[in-house]
Amino acid sequence: MDYSKEAMTKHAQWKGKIEVVTNVPLETKDDLSIAYTPGVAEPCLAIEKDVNLSYDLTRRGNLVAVVTDGTAVLGLGDIGPEAGMPVMEGKCALFKAFADVDAFPLCIRSKNVDDIVNTVKLLAGSFGGVNLEDISAPRCFEIESRLKKECDIPIFHDDQHGTAVVTLSAMINALKLTGKDIHKIKVVTSGAGAAGIAIIKLLISMGLENVIMTDRTGAIYEGRDNLNPEKEEMAKITNRKMEKGTLAEVIKGADVFIGVSAPGSVTKEMVASMASNPILFPMANPTPEIMPNLALEAGAAVVGTGRSDFPNQINNVLAFPGIFRGALDVRATDINDEMKIAAAKAIAGFVSDEELSREYIIPSALNKDVAKAVAQAVAQAAKDSGVARI
Amino acid sequence: MDYSKEAMTKHAQWKGKIEVVTNVPLETKDDLSIAYTPGVAEPCLAIEKDVNLSYDLTRRGNLVAVVTDGTAVLGLGDIGPEAGMPVMEGKCALFKAFADVDAFPLCIRSKNVDDIVNTVKLLAGSFGGVNLEDISAPRCFEIESRLKKECDIPIFHDDQHGTAVVTLSAMINALKLTGKDIHKIKVVTSGAGAAGIAIIKLLISMGLENVIMTDRTGAIYEGRDNLNPEKEEMAKITNRKMEKGTLAEVIKGADVFIGVSAPGSVTKEMVASMASNPILFPMANPTPEIMPNLALEAGAAVVGTGRSDFPNQINNVLAFPGIFRGALDVRATDINDEMKIAAAKAIAGFVSDEELSREYIIPSALNKDVAKAVAQAVAQAAKDSGVARI
Repeated sequence: MDYSKEAMTKHAQWKGKIEVVTNVPLETKDDLSIAYTPGVAEPCLAIEKDVNLSYDLTRRGNLVAVVTDGTAVLGLGDIGPEAGMPVMEGKCALFKAFADVDAFPLCIRSKNVDDIVNTVKLLAGSFGGVNLEDISAPRCFEIESRLKKECDIPIFHDDQHGTAVVTLSAMINALKLTGKDIHKIKVVTSGAGAAGIAIIKLLISMGLENVIMTDRTGAIYEGRDNLNPEKEEMAKITNRKMEKGTLAEVIKGADVFIGVSAPGSVTKEMVASMASNPILFPMANPTPEIMPNLALEAGAAVVGTGRSDFPNQINNVLAFPGIFRGALDVRATDINDEMKIAAAKAIAGFVSDEELSREYIIPSALNKDVAKAVAQAVAQAAKDSGVARI
Repeated sequence: MDYSKEAMTKHAQWKGKIEVVTNVPLETKDDLSIAYTPGVAEPCLAIEKDVNLSYDLTRRGNLVAVVTDGTAVLGLGDIGPEAGMPVMEGKCALFKAFADVDAFPLCIRSKNVDDIVNTVKLLAGSFGGVNLEDISAPRCFEIESRLKKECDIPIFHDDQHGTAVVTLSAMINALKLTGKDIHKIKVVTSGAGAAGIAIIKLLISMGLENVIMTDRTGAIYEGRDNLNPEKEEMAKITNRKMEKGTLAEVIKGADVFIGVSAPGSVTKEMVASMASNPILFPMANPTPEIMPNLALEAGAAVVGTGRSDFPNQINNVLAFPGIFRGALDVRATDINDEMKIAAAKAIAGFVSDEELSREYIIPSALNKDVAKAVAQAVAQAAKDSGVARI
C-alpha cells in the first residue's frame, strides 16, 4: 500500500483524528442546571476549597497534553507547529485507543525555551500530565528538566524516555536469548541525541558498565572537542577506557549496537567485527542504520528496528499509553526511572520463555493488552517509589 | 430539584463533562501506518507548504479553545483556574451538543495580562477560534483587544459579546412588542462592567442614542470621578445630556432597564417612574435586580431575566454555539459587529409575529435549531463584511 497517498486521502476525509465530545445529558432545563448554571457552582466551590478535587470533578485526572513546537517532527525536522499537528493528533488517538487516556495536542508557536516552559507551566492546572513530543535537542533537555522542577504533574518527553523504555524491553529479552549479562557487555551507539542519551542512561541504571556513544565526529570521550553539555555529561559516565575513533573502529568487539542516527552507517563488515552473537537495534526511521537481512547475514544473533515490516519492531506505542495510564491511575507527581524500568520489564514479560526467539523479542505494537500490564506495573512502581498521590 | 446537591453527585460520577476520543481505525499495521508513521508525514509536509491546510487535515477547522484564568467565574468571583474548570467543561459540552463545535478548556494559572495573552497567542495555531470566559474586568478588555490584534483566528469574549448578542435579540422583539423605536428610546443600565459595556456598544451600533449607564457611584457622565478607562470611553458616547444622580433618579422616564449588576437594586417605585410600557431585563444571576412578578405589578410591559424558571430567559447558549459554528464554517478571521448583529437578528427571528408576546420574546435556550440559524446568518455576515476566508 502507498501509505503516503492513502494518508493524504484519509486525513482529508477525517478532518482531524481526534474529537472533543460530551457524554452528559443536555436536553432539558434540569440537565443544563446540573451540568451548567446554577448547579455547576457547587463543584467549582468544592475545587476552590481543595484543588485536588479537580482530579475527581473534572477531566483532569484522565487528561494528558501532547506538546510540541514542531522542531523535530518524525524525521522531517523543523516543520513548524501547525505542520506537526497530524503527528500530535495521531499520538492523542493512540493514547485513547490503547489506554483510554484523553490526550489533547498543543502545538506552540515558539522555539524559545522560556516560552515553551511558561506555556506548559501556566496550563498545568488543566491537565493530569504532559507528554513532550518532537522537540529538537538540546532544547528538549532544558525544557523537560525545568518543567519537571516547576510543575506538580508528571512531565515525560516520549522521544527520550518512551524510546528508552521500549529499547530496554527489547534489550532485556535479547540478552536473555543470547545469554549475555548487562554488567559484562559492551554497547556502542550511533547517535548521541535525545533518544540515544535517554536509552544509555536507562541501561546504565540497569547495570550497564561498558558503553561507548558515537556521533558524527566519532567516539565520545571525556575531554573531546565539539561536545554539547549533554554529551559532555555522557562523556563522564561512558567510555571509561577513553577509546577514540570512528564507529567502525569502536564497534569492534561490541555485544550490542544501538542506532538512533542515520541510514547506512553500519556495514556487514562492522557487524562481523563485533563480539559473537551480536545484538543490533538499528532504529533509524524509516531506513535503519543497516537492513536486518544484511545484519543477520553478517552474523547478528537478533535484530530489532523501528519498522513494522520487519520482526521485532521497537515502537514507543508499547510504552507511552500504559505509562501515562499507570501514572494517572495513582495520580503520580513524576514519571521516574523506577516507573520506566517497571514499564520495560512489563513489556518484555509479554514474551514468554517458550515464545522467545530471534524473531520475537518484543510484543506486537498492535497488542493492546500490553498497555494494561504496563499501567499496572507503572502504578505499582510509582507507589513503591513514593510518587503516587492516591 | 436541589441542583447543587445533584450537580455534586453527577460531577463526581462523570469525572469530567468532556472526553477526547478518536474515530479513526487503529487496529491493524496498515491503520497505524496511515494514521501515524510513516503515512502521517505526508499531511505534515502538505501543511508545512501551505499552513491553511491545517484547517482541512487536522481538527483545527472545528476547534475552539475555551480560555479562562478563573478570576470571574459565574457570580463566584476569583476562584482560580482549577476551580473554574467545571464551568469551562460545561461550556465545551454545550458547544458540542448545540453546534457540533469541538471545544477544549484551558485554565491559565496566572492573572497577568501578558501571561494570558502570550499563552493564547502561542497556541493560536492549534485552534480555529478562542472563546474567552469568566476573566475579570477591566483585564478582559485589554486581553481581548490585544489578542484580536495579534492572532489570526477569531477571539470572542462571551461574557461581553455573547451577552450583548442575546440581549440585543430580546431587545429587538421587546421593542417590536411595545412599538418602541430604538432611535427614540431611553435606556438605563445598572452595571457598567464587561457585559454592560458590550451590550450598550452593540445597541448603539444598532441606532440607540439615549442611554445612561450607572455603576455603584450612580450615573456615568463625562468628567465624573472614579472612572476606569473603559467607563471613561463610555462616558464620551453615552449620557450626552450629562444627567447626574442615582439609578433611582436617572431611571425616571426610561423605556428600558438593563441590569447586569446586583440583586435588589431596582424597586417597584423605580419601575413605576419609567416611561409607559417599560421593558426590563434584570439579568443579575441567580437573583435579578428585581423579581419579574414585582416588575410586572409595577407596570412593566415585558421582563427578561437570566433564569430558566421565568419566561424570556436571556441565555448566552442561544448565541455562542451558532456564532462559532458560523465563524468556523467560513474560517472567519474575526467575529465583528456585523456578525454579532446578524446573530441577534437570527435569534429574534425565531419568534414569529404571531407567537410574540410579553411572555415569549426570545426562543428557548433548549431549542437546538437556533444555533443552525445563527450559524447561517453569522457565516453570511462574515462573507458580506469581508472576514471570511472560504
